[in-house]
Amino acid sequence: MALTQARTMPGVLELLPLDQIAFQRMLDVIRRNYERFGFLPVETPVMEYSDVLLTKTGGETERQVYFVQSTGTLNAEKEGVPELALRFDLTVPLARYVAEHEHDLSFPFRRYQMQRVYRGERAQRGRFREFYQCDIDVIGKDSLSVRYDAELPAVIYSVFRELNIGAFTIQLNNRKLMRGFFESLGIIDGEQQTLVLREVDKLDKRGADYVRDTLTGEQFGLSAEVAQKILDFVQVRSTSLQDAFDKLDALGPGPESMEQGRAELKEVLGLIRDFGVPESHFVMNLSIARGLDYYTGTVYETTLNDHPQIGSICSGGRYENLASQYTKSKLPGVGISIGLTRLYWQLRDAGLIATGQSTVDVLVTQMDAAQMPAYLALANELRSAGIATEVVLEGGKLGKQFKYADRAGIRFVIVLGEDEIVKGVVTVKDLRREDQFEVSRVDLIKSLRVELAQAEVGR
Amino acid sequence: MALTQARTMPGVLELLPLDQIAFQRMLDVIRRNYERFGFLPVETPVMEYSDVLLTKTGGETERQVYFVQSTGTLNAEKEGVPELALRFDLTVPLARYVAEHEHDLSFPFRRYQMQRVYRGERAQRGRFREFYQCDIDVIGKDSLSVRYDAELPAVIYSVFRELNIGAFTIQLNNRKLMRGFFESLGIIDGEQQTLVLREVDKLDKRGADYVRDTLTGEQFGLSAEVAQKILDFVQVRSTSLQDAFDKLDALGPGPESMEQGRAELKEVLGLIRDFGVPESHFVMNLSIARGLDYYTGTVYETTLNDHPQIGSICSGGRYENLASQYTKSKLPGVGISIGLTRLYWQLRDAGLIATGQSTVDVLVTQMDAAQMPAYLALANELRSAGIATEVVLEGGKLGKQFKYADRAGIRFVIVLGEDEIVKGVVTVKDLRREDQFEVSRVDLIKSLRVELAQAEVGR
Repeated sequence: MALTQARTMPGVLELLPLDQIAFQRMLDVIRRNYERFGFLPVETPVMEYSDVLLTKTGGETERQVYFVQSTGTLNAEKEGVPELALRFDLTVPLARYVAEHEHDLSFPFRRYQMQRVYRGERAQRGRFREFYQCDIDVIGKDSLSVRYDAELPAVIYSVFRELNIGAFTIQLNNRKLMRGFFESLGIIDGEQQTLVLREVDKLDKRGADYVRDTLTGEQFGLSAEVAQKILDFVQVRSTSLQDAFDKLDALGPGPESMEQGRAELKEVLGLIRDFGVPESHFVMNLSIARGLDYYTGTVYETTLNDHPQIGSICSGGRYENLASQYTKSKLPGVGISIGLTRLYWQLRDAGLIATGQSTVDVLVTQMDAAQMPAYLALANELRSAGIATEVVLEGGKLGKQFKYADRAGIRFVIVLGEDEIVKGVVTVKDLRREDQFEVSRVDLIKSLRVELAQAEVGR
Repeated sequence: MALTQARTMPGVLELLPLDQIAFQRMLDVIRRNYERFGFLPVETPVMEYSDVLLTKTGGETERQVYFVQSTGTLNAEKEGVPELALRFDLTVPLARYVAEHEHDLSFPFRRYQMQRVYRGERAQRGRFREFYQCDIDVIGKDSLSVRYDAELPAVIYSVFRELNIGAFTIQLNNRKLMRGFFESLGIIDGEQQTLVLREVDKLDKRGADYVRDTLTGEQFGLSAEVAQKILDFVQVRSTSLQDAFDKLDALGPGPESMEQGRAELKEVLGLIRDFGVPESHFVMNLSIARGLDYYTGTVYETTLNDHPQIGSICSGGRYENLASQYTKSKLPGVGISIGLTRLYWQLRDAGLIATGQSTVDVLVTQMDAAQMPAYLALANELRSAGIATEVVLEGGKLGKQFKYADRAGIRFVIVLGEDEIVKGVVTVKDLRREDQFEVSRVDLIKSLRVELAQAEVGR
């Protein structure tokens, strides 16, 4: 039989087991923190009806959608859009979920969802066609206190502190403040505001002169004074909470939406500290806009202090109405998202995360096949104590068994020969410390637990 | 704007949060046990190249495949089979993974994979188009000791004991024994053996007379004596390990493959006990064949003693060569699979699992908005102690807040007014026990931990 080449499509991240362990550990940390803050798990099907998924779009998103057809419909549905498509984010499925199950949910509805999403991106380094999103959202019915906007930074702080991938800063802004400020400059049209924001987004890459030239150029036709005011505004950063309040006041009076945005931002910033986030970990940054028109109030980005090139590792914000395409109920919400596949890939690329240690704690070697019952009994004891244990069932030279453990990243190797069985002891080799010790059978679990608990702390 | 009806396709299982918690708990138990036995995590992309996925098939499977097309290829690929398809099991992706990463893996390679798979089934109650499979496999290079066949029942035992869904029995057979026995009756052709097995599979539903009539009828043309021998064979069940050995011996001598199968089955059955599985939990059942032609040695099924109608809840077996379509390396293996979506659905249908308790342990109510910093500080303390805590940020009447907790399945509600703050105490309402107690702030975490640990044991 001719062989088929075993291969995966570009744009997916498939990991070797030790890397998968590191990835899984990150998923676990995120989930544990989401649960600690009282978010409930939701999973949705990967496929949605195309008409349900694509109600709001028509632009970029639809061009990147993956459609799904079973063998039967493949031939039948030659024309038009197929009936099913893969989700491209977790927000549209959340909107559909909340609208569909509205009467079975308690509001404010706090859900987390950690699943893969699909986008038909062009194949390119660092662009993924399949990637994990780890989202939380709080959805209110009719209204939702701005206090929830201050809670999410506390979740971000808790997650990234435990992920332990370096110093980070949560950056906040408010879209109402931003829009109100633009209004005060006479830029009233929402579309126009968005275009200006898109230009301003190029500040870091192209510099102030380039952006100033564009804003005063033919397309926008803004005065030099207005352009400068915009540039000054988006360069506002706070150095402390008091500094943020001072700088917000220094913006001077503005139209109603600006005042509302300023009041919201002040309330949120003031509350974040009460939620336990140290002042060192959050700032006001008036350039944060988030690409989407979706957000209407608070917006967040999170950056690694020592690796700004990675960009935002956790973003989100407040929106007015989650599911207006499916229900007449008004469902305001606030949410954040961690794109874990991309984050993991970038961290690994930057050398910031090591390959995981094996989830297997102990390998019980096979010195003597006749002692198999003793090996199995020992493994059972260890497993009952919660210690992940593999037994060498195949046999072969002891040297080869050690090599296997070493290559597989298993830390402890247990050697148990007839002598040791008679003496009631066990020889444990610690491959990480390149050390070995003999311990009485009775004390084995206790001493392994001590070693493993120390390793856990050091992870 | 006209509303789109929020709905999901038939054949998927989307759960409300408390059900999702129960489902997630099962996933966690399975994963924990898989890891305890030294299996390593693998995840593969949901999409595979169609030519990679469909090398071996052409029958039933291909008719049920979901194909995937991005917007760009939708119009381009009008003819033929689209380039991408969704996985329909985890075995083909495993074969592809092992062949693709062969030189980076250590053998025997022990992996677990718990992901969703997709089949374009006709919509029907209890048939799923998207469902979780939770698989483990041990893959050897060139050879793999039959001892691994005895290890998997120990994993099954460990998983289902902890899942706590009732008494269960692991049933074992051996395909070599079965094929050898058919050979001894003159049924040499593999295809013919499969057809006979398919008839014999109807024994439970149609009865012995029906099956005997078919076997001696026109299609098969077997003698009454041979038909009876087949019926006697497939009705062999062991009542103990010794009984299994006795009944295997009583089959009398047979061709080589029968002798080999008998020796393997004896070795596996004998070892299972050493692996810690009590004799009460496994039997030899010579009717177990597993539909697929895939298995070549040991085969397993697992049934719930009190709910035989549910069928096998965990099945698998030994195969000769995992990835012959992708590599010349010989990769024998043994594996099992739990179809968790179907299992969960059936257990819930049979009233065997309750809706989950909330993952949120505590709701901190808002008696007085001015005390918000105190509520947030309390919540932080609880979270740091690993107690999942939600704070009511919206305000509103206390009665409404209690109602929310009750509906959301949150057990403990904390009430903290000015009086309590001054006295340094906290009032805790236990909604499950319909009880309440006052506890000093200092002892709160300790006493909640005691209550929660007790609840954990009772789950």
